[in-house]
Amino acid sequence: MASHNTSSQFTGGMAFTTLLNGHSITTDLAATGGGLDKGPRPKALMLLALSGCTGLDVVSILNKMRVSFTDFVIDINADLTDEEAATYKTVQLIYKIKVAEEDKPKVEKAVNLSLEKYCGVAAMFRKFATVTKEIVYL
Amino acid sequence: MASHNTSSQFTGGMAFTTLLNGHSITTDLAATGGGLDKGPRPKALMLLALSGCTGLDVVSILNKMRVSFTDFVIDINADLTDEEAATYKTVQLIYKIKVAEEDKPKVEKAVNLSLEKYCGVAAMFRKFATVTKEIVYL
Repeated sequence: MASHNTSSQFTGGMAFTTLLNGHSITTDLAATGGGLDKGPRPKALMLLALSGCTGLDVVSILNKMRVSFTDFVIDINADLTDEEAATYKTVQLIYKIKVAEEDKPKVEKAVNLSLEKYCGVAAMFRKFATVTKEIVYL
Repeated sequence: MASHNTSSQFTGGMAFTTLLNGHSITTDLAATGGGLDKGPRPKALMLLALSGCTGLDVVSILNKMRVSFTDFVIDINADLTDEEAATYKTVQLIYKIKVAEEDKPKVEKAVNLSLEKYCGVAAMFRKFATVTKEIVYL
């Protein structure tokens, strides 16, 4: 069974710093929240886990299909609940990509395979949020 | 209703780069996965969202209680399912902290308040994983 192990050190203000796969990542609050803005707010890192996960799936599948693409961007619009412990309620993924007209069905297939089969982060998000997707061809 | 909006750009290999609260964060795979190791793997960013979220709660509560502390580290041991889209199944949070003997009950209270009341990331994790906690006094 695979496992992930992290160790996050308090580094002043509201900042925690973690060495993850050899890369130092710091989360913090803005000054208005008592932080020193040494890094982004922690919660939205979950959205980068999601875009990074589904993104590499799509790139990997398109590479295998020998589909050339450029200008690939994944936008996420996530609405939060109004509860005290606010959680993501609706999460809209917008895949923006430039491909040849005939390759568009392959992009659809790659995105669907990622969201429905390969991307563990998307599977986790579906346990607490409604996840929708849209593809925009540039 | 609050919302979080991110835009992650494909930057070669398997890398996606996002400007989040003014800080650039890149996720990527290692060379063995077709990446260039420009940043950490995306999934484990979820664990940093969790440690960063509960960590700032605990710091904030201890500050309000006027509790002095040092050497605060949050370790996470997370086991994944064996499914194709592997998700976190059990997530153990270990809060390591140095405080005066008489302040230990306040640390317990701060950790419990974070996990049960304030930390939205912990609330999301509980929807797909069993979350446990331990406090280790240094």
